[in-house]
Formats: sequence, C-alpha cells, structure tokens
Amino acid sequence: MSKERPTNSPTGDRETISELTTGRLSVYLRCLTFLESVGQSTVSSAELAERFHLNSAQIRKDLACFGEFGTRGVGYNVTRLRDHLVRELGLDRTRRVLIAGAGNLGMALADYAGFNDHGFEITGLVDNDPDKIGRRSRSGIEVLPWDELPSIIREHQVDIGIVAVNAEAAQTVYDAFADAGLNAVLNFAPTQLRSRSGVKVKSVDLRINLESLSFHLKNVEDGG
Amino acid sequence: MSKERPTNSPTGDRETISELTTGRLSVYLRCLTFLESVGQSTVSSAELAERFHLNSAQIRKDLACFGEFGTRGVGYNVTRLRDHLVRELGLDRTRRVLIAGAGNLGMALADYAGFNDHGFEITGLVDNDPDKIGRRSRSGIEVLPWDELPSIIREHQVDIGIVAVNAEAAQTVYDAFADAGLNAVLNFAPTQLRSRSGVKVKSVDLRINLESLSFHLKNVEDGG
Repeated sequence: MSKERPTNSPTGDRETISELTTGRLSVYLRCLTFLESVGQSTVSSAELAERFHLNSAQIRKDLACFGEFGTRGVGYNVTRLRDHLVRELGLDRTRRVLIAGAGNLGMALADYAGFNDHGFEITGLVDNDPDKIGRRSRSGIEVLPWDELPSIIREHQVDIGIVAVNAEAAQTVYDAFADAGLNAVLNFAPTQLRSRSGVKVKSVDLRINLESLSFHLKNVEDGG
Repeated sequence: MSKERPTNSPTGDRETISELTTGRLSVYLRCLTFLESVGQSTVSSAELAERFHLNSAQIRKDLACFGEFGTRGVGYNVTRLRDHLVRELGLDRTRRVLIAGAGNLGMALADYAGFNDHGFEITGLVDNDPDKIGRRSRSGIEVLPWDELPSIIREHQVDIGIVAVNAEAAQTVYDAFADAGLNAVLNFAPTQLRSRSGVKVKSVDLRINLESLSFHLKNVEDGG
C-alpha cells in the first residue's frame, strides 16, 4: 500500500455527494462485509481495488469525503470502516417500505430478498383492484386497499414508497406518496416523474445492465 | 467550457474498462439522446456535467478512452458522440434475450419496456412448470418448455439469458445457458454464481437503490 490520502479536494459538503458516490459506498460496504465475514481486520485501498476490481484513487477520494483517511502502511480498519459506512448510509435503523402496485413486479419486489433484510422491511403492498386486496405475496406480504394509503403510511410508519405501477399511473402514485408525507420514492415505472422539493425519487433503469452485457458481447465479437 | 482533454492516462485497453465505466457510458448515452431529441448539436463536458449532475473530469477521461476528445471551445458533436457510444456499447445490432423463470419476476421482466426496445428483444420465457408452459405475459411473450432450452436458444438466436429463478435453481440455469453457448447472463437471483471463463454474468442488486434513498433520508433527519 502506498498512501491513504485523498487525491482530490474532499469537501465534506453533503450536497455534493452524488448518486454515483452513494452507489460506490454501497459497493464498498458489500466488500467490507465480505472481508469481515472472512476474518480480515485491515485493508488498504490498493487491496480493496485489486480484489474487487475498483479504482484505488476513487476509493481514497470517496472515503476521505467522510473523514476516513486510513493509516499509512496499515490501511483501513475493516470493522470500523464498515460500521462507519452503515451509519453514513443510514442503515443503522430500519426503513419501512410500502409497494404501490400488486402486479407481477410488485409481488416480485415484495419477496425480493434484499428488500427485507438488514435495514429494510416491506410493510405491505397497496392496490386499487378489489380482487387483489387481501391477497398475500409468497413470503406473506399483504395487499392493502389503495384508498387507505394515508392511514396505512401513518400506521405502518412507512419511510420509502415504491412505484410498481404502469407509466400512466406512476405520477398519481408519487403525488399520493408525497401528500402522505413520504420523503423518498423508488420508481420502477418507465417514466420521468415530476418530483417535489424534498421528496426524493430514484428511478431504476434495468436496461443499463443489458447494455453492459451488450458491451461485453461486442468485445467478444470484435476481439474473438 | 475550458478544455476537452483527458485528465488521466487513457489506455484504449478494453480489458481495463470497468463495469462502472460501462454504466457511465450508458448514462452519457441517455443524456445525449435527450439533447439530440431537443435539437442541441454540440455539448461541452462542463455542460453535460452541470445539466445532468455528472463529473466533467470523469466525462473527459471516459470519452478519451474511446478516442473522443471533443474540440476545444466547441465541445462534442452530440449526434456523432451518441452514434459512437451506440456502436461502442454494441447497441447498433439487436440482442435477443431469453428469460428463465416465468414467476412474478420473469413475467414482469418480459413486459419491462426497456428490455424490448432499441437494441434488445425478448424472445421468450422458459419454465419447467407444465402449468405455465404455453401461457403468455401481458405483452404476449410466450412461456416455452425448459427441457427444450438448447434448441430454443439455437432457433431464436438468443444472445443473453436472464436468470429469474430462485437462488437454489440459479446455478443450474446459468450452467445450462453456458452449455447452450450463451456468452452473457443477467442474474436477478440473490446468490453468487460460479461463472465460467467467457460466459459473463452480471448480477442485479436492487438493494443499492434503497440504500441510496436511505442515505437521503438520513441527511433529511440529520440536517432538518
């Protein structure tokens, strides 16, 4: 390991921490959780970079933003850094999640392992189709009536709403989430939502994954 | 705009182009498609960065890897750069996609808009449940018998396989895809697959999106 210093001006200004940075923090957290699980106590940015195919300068820069500089010649303490990232990402408390739309996608998300695990809890689904109300996903998440959204959000103390309806209904769902006081919305509908100040929306673009594989296939085709 | 020069050693070595870089190329492509749709003909890295909340040095570095340096004082030609990225990502031909698993997730993915659009075509679903075979997704994608996987892949000229089965069955599906000659697999099962040389697997981690929202909520809570 060479040095654990930032390579670029760290700011500490949380406004400047982008979506991409947050995504990288999640990746670092997964790497550190793995290292902790195999009993490793310290790690350098160079080793993190090499083992997990990351960029060591980027790691140092990202972690320096959070006041984590490591120790020269030793690196980062794995458990300490992991705990720090858990707190930075706000995963040291449970976020309660409600899914709007009990179609194929909503049902699949209700049972998705990573959504009902350390830090997150799916509290229910909501739908406006009377035939779906009262049904349960395979893992037992119940479909509740859309009409009762405000009281459901209040009673279940929901933090995050997921939009799993079609593009036409997505804005109505977002607005209803915002009206009911939610500050964070995850959108799976293929549409751009008009967001309100303070009610953050993150849209999932699954197509990017296919594009990455297309890039790989192109290189196979080009390079043999 | 200042200068459109690389800030770091471009390599041209395609082996070094990481997943993260590929993801960023997809993001740049979306930005350029948008700019083209509103009739903008040139764009600087600084403007791209400001409008779409990206990092201008990173943009210059990424594009320089592909031999795109822009013109000082003018920037990049939007259409030319967009076409270049389409070709670099191998999206100038149609990739045919097959989904294994016709449960809620598989059915939702079969109808997912971005998977049946410019460059990608869902050719079918496969499942080993006799009750599901012959059914169709809402958009009309048919469920075919798992037993016939090799001939389906050959006849439909499938390029990419999607794993939409549970964690226990995922490795079997990956291996069958590899045996049938696929070089690219998109995995939605929450498990680490043992991949074979040349058969690239990309695993989707939807939880990262919730973690990003958790980070936002934490800052709202901390900062008021």
